[in-house]
Amino acid sequence: MPPVRNVLYIMCDQLRRDYLSCYGHAHLHTPNIDRLAAAGVRFSRAYTQGTICGPSRMSAYTGRYVSSHQVAWNAVPLPLEELTLGDYLRPHGIRTALVGKTHATPNLDALQRLEIDPDSAQAQPLNEVGFEAYVRHDGIFPDSPLFADKRESAPYTHYLREQGYAGTNPWHTWANAAAGQDGEILSGWHMRNAHLPARVAEAHSETAYTTDRAIDFIHEQGAQPWCLHLSYIKPHWPYIAPAPYHALYGADQVQAPIRAEPGQASDHPVYQAFRQHQESLNFSRDEVRLRVIPTYMGLIKQVDDQLGRLFDVLHNTGRWDDTLIVFTSDHGDFLGDHHLGEKEFLLEPAVGVPLIVRDPRAAADISRGTVDARLVETIDALPTFLEALGLPTAEHRLEGRSLIALLHGLETDWRRMTMVRSERWKYLAYDGFRAQLFDLENDPQELHDLGADPAYAPVREVHQGYLFEWLRGLKRRTTISHAEIDLRGQRFRYGEPEAEKVVQIGVW
Amino acid sequence: MPPVRNVLYIMCDQLRRDYLSCYGHAHLHTPNIDRLAAAGVRFSRAYTQGTICGPSRMSAYTGRYVSSHQVAWNAVPLPLEELTLGDYLRPHGIRTALVGKTHATPNLDALQRLEIDPDSAQAQPLNEVGFEAYVRHDGIFPDSPLFADKRESAPYTHYLREQGYAGTNPWHTWANAAAGQDGEILSGWHMRNAHLPARVAEAHSETAYTTDRAIDFIHEQGAQPWCLHLSYIKPHWPYIAPAPYHALYGADQVQAPIRAEPGQASDHPVYQAFRQHQESLNFSRDEVRLRVIPTYMGLIKQVDDQLGRLFDVLHNTGRWDDTLIVFTSDHGDFLGDHHLGEKEFLLEPAVGVPLIVRDPRAAADISRGTVDARLVETIDALPTFLEALGLPTAEHRLEGRSLIALLHGLETDWRRMTMVRSERWKYLAYDGFRAQLFDLENDPQELHDLGADPAYAPVREVHQGYLFEWLRGLKRRTTISHAEIDLRGQRFRYGEPEAEKVVQIGVW
Repeated sequence: MPPVRNVLYIMCDQLRRDYLSCYGHAHLHTPNIDRLAAAGVRFSRAYTQGTICGPSRMSAYTGRYVSSHQVAWNAVPLPLEELTLGDYLRPHGIRTALVGKTHATPNLDALQRLEIDPDSAQAQPLNEVGFEAYVRHDGIFPDSPLFADKRESAPYTHYLREQGYAGTNPWHTWANAAAGQDGEILSGWHMRNAHLPARVAEAHSETAYTTDRAIDFIHEQGAQPWCLHLSYIKPHWPYIAPAPYHALYGADQVQAPIRAEPGQASDHPVYQAFRQHQESLNFSRDEVRLRVIPTYMGLIKQVDDQLGRLFDVLHNTGRWDDTLIVFTSDHGDFLGDHHLGEKEFLLEPAVGVPLIVRDPRAAADISRGTVDARLVETIDALPTFLEALGLPTAEHRLEGRSLIALLHGLETDWRRMTMVRSERWKYLAYDGFRAQLFDLENDPQELHDLGADPAYAPVREVHQGYLFEWLRGLKRRTTISHAEIDLRGQRFRYGEPEAEKVVQIGVW
Repeated sequence: MPPVRNVLYIMCDQLRRDYLSCYGHAHLHTPNIDRLAAAGVRFSRAYTQGTICGPSRMSAYTGRYVSSHQVAWNAVPLPLEELTLGDYLRPHGIRTALVGKTHATPNLDALQRLEIDPDSAQAQPLNEVGFEAYVRHDGIFPDSPLFADKRESAPYTHYLREQGYAGTNPWHTWANAAAGQDGEILSGWHMRNAHLPARVAEAHSETAYTTDRAIDFIHEQGAQPWCLHLSYIKPHWPYIAPAPYHALYGADQVQAPIRAEPGQASDHPVYQAFRQHQESLNFSRDEVRLRVIPTYMGLIKQVDDQLGRLFDVLHNTGRWDDTLIVFTSDHGDFLGDHHLGEKEFLLEPAVGVPLIVRDPRAAADISRGTVDARLVETIDALPTFLEALGLPTAEHRLEGRSLIALLHGLETDWRRMTMVRSERWKYLAYDGFRAQLFDLENDPQELHDLGADPAYAPVREVHQGYLFEWLRGLKRRTTISHAEIDLRGQRFRYGEPEAEKVVQIGVW
């Protein structure tokens, strides 16, 4: 089978799976993303590796679990020796570029120890976790001197100034703020302002800007092979949208929150602790949900509109026919479900992500427009790209699995996942606390925690066994390939023919 | 408490714990090692992290489990970002040198990707896993063109030639070979030659040469602080010793093999497979044991004599009083016990190692000459050095524990270990096979495998739980310290005071 030529890897930030019409949202219509789903496969049970940005993204870029790549929290640097998308593709002549966000943090300690100047060309791809930073835009520039360097080095800051949005921090004062009645700046950090239009024109907002740069790259690259990571910061907070997206939806289009009956919610101490966070307390109030969620929906609608523009470009340039396209998110957002805000907990609104894959090749025609309910993960993207591009795999490192066989309708043994997610159950293990268990078949909203119910001890035991098996199966010998190990074995030990062994042990 | 000034970290290769008189050998008298034990603490239940050289040593040098540092087999390169002894000590002005063996393999792929010339000064400590290679001597130069570069770059090759031992591979033809009746070379690779004297004079043999270089280093360093890793290749095979050590012991001084009664040995498939290796089949024969083991004992006796010389130097220079001394081995040797040869199996003759620690400070007087039966590990050495030298620890990386509290008689919670070794039991887990279980209290020789006995299911379950807990506790966020994480948390999130938070989430 001929390989695809390009890969377009689109990621939103903090986009919930169920906030797209193809995933069932009743009021938020996303026709362009739906168009991609109709032309490819929509995975209905895709999961992210981490429910905050950094861990999730490093899993996406390395094809490895958080436990393996070690970025267990935001702003933790990736070990330099973790190979990423760009490391796998670039040696094969595929320009691998970033437009948007990665949440990568330079590993300055390691660079210093290896005597590599962090500002050198040598360090550049290391600092950008393997990407060529065509445009890096992570968003989030708080109005603090701590962020001055980051803000001034950001292309979007200068772009905004060129468009006439003046000031030291136009991201904050224009793109993520509204104007009060007396012209005062009302910050998007305050959710009470979510219903107001941002001070930036839609065409200059982060989502439009990011799409423009992606289109620039695709035009610039022409028929040369590329992999583009188009990575939107939105609909991540601050929850504030440019007109007209701030006002497209109203309180009557907000879905009812997913919550257990009073007194029936899990008493698990970890869950209870998360309920006390400020964002959880605020999102537990209807006043907050009904003001914020319409804007969250508007931000998603804007992404969909911008993707419509982009897909048109792909069609008009012929790229639709030679490009593998993936659309996904790094994690979800509780938005008040389960009386939680943000995403640092492994219930479905946070850990479930949309995942749509379109393979342009004829072999994938069999699956176009279908829904695949098999358990797939963020780490599967990189192995999928390698197989689609016809490149060698790296079995001693990659912990994800290529989805190509699924797209091509080929029979294959598939997985249960850890978290642990099995076909029916979700099992959450804790250090120092009892586990939680949910029956997703009979309780898809995860309202009944079976983690302390003696009747379910055998189910928990089986899932502890899965977790144990998974922990032992992580790839922990990454500096040398399986093939090289086999070769050495044959030369030095254990292999045949005996007479050719170089190191002789136990000979009489 | 004032720190010690120097660290002397002595390691033998393939030395069994029970082949020293202080550990109970009836015929092999090792007065110099015993002298160290009398002046320090002898740990009676010390374990290595891996029963082959590379994994064991990388655990020693990193203070981390094999699962963490990833060197799961010999000749697997250590990831460049694994910090080692030298990385911890050198920034504090402590010259950290190697005399002898490390089994380190340069990580050429990683160097290439980082654009570091493997022959540059920058790469030197990386290639030597953090040591200054005062003298690197790994031994083992098979007579094959594959080893030509390694052989020619080895100082010992040139040393031997300077002493008049000519040829392309004097290690093989002189130091590890005997002469036949007609002057023909009888290779030490063939165990049938083990009773013959090596063609090298004792003073020029590997053990004497290595000791000489260590003494050179100690004299050269004078009163400047140092850490010396003195790492003998012996008593590792080839089993051949220079006169008079080839003939000090006879068959009547060989201990009886540890073996189950006929028909009572474990039927476990992994164990049974190891019994079919050539070295296991040969060591199962009395003819082999009775010829090889006396030479193995002679090689150990030579190490002890050389350590006597070295300890005298330490006394005469005053270094005995300001140097922490550790004596250990990387793993043991089955020598026919359990019908096995070599060491790749986790029974006591392979996984148990001698460990003697002498802290020169007055605070350790309380423990001098005592035997400590607590469960300690090879990875504990590095944290012990850091504490003794008064240097900062690295809690986010190090998986071992400093032994200083034990040496100073301080109360401390101690561990059970994984393998899993608990106070009473040893549990060996396998992928795809049932576990093995031994009751070391009632079956210290591990002759009764309880891994399939239904009566011991609860014990196995508890130990599977320990293994699960251990796997989850491995240090997997190594690029950033705990202190830095706390600092960021306070600035950006979750910490107090609330008003100083820079990134504001969920504010109304």
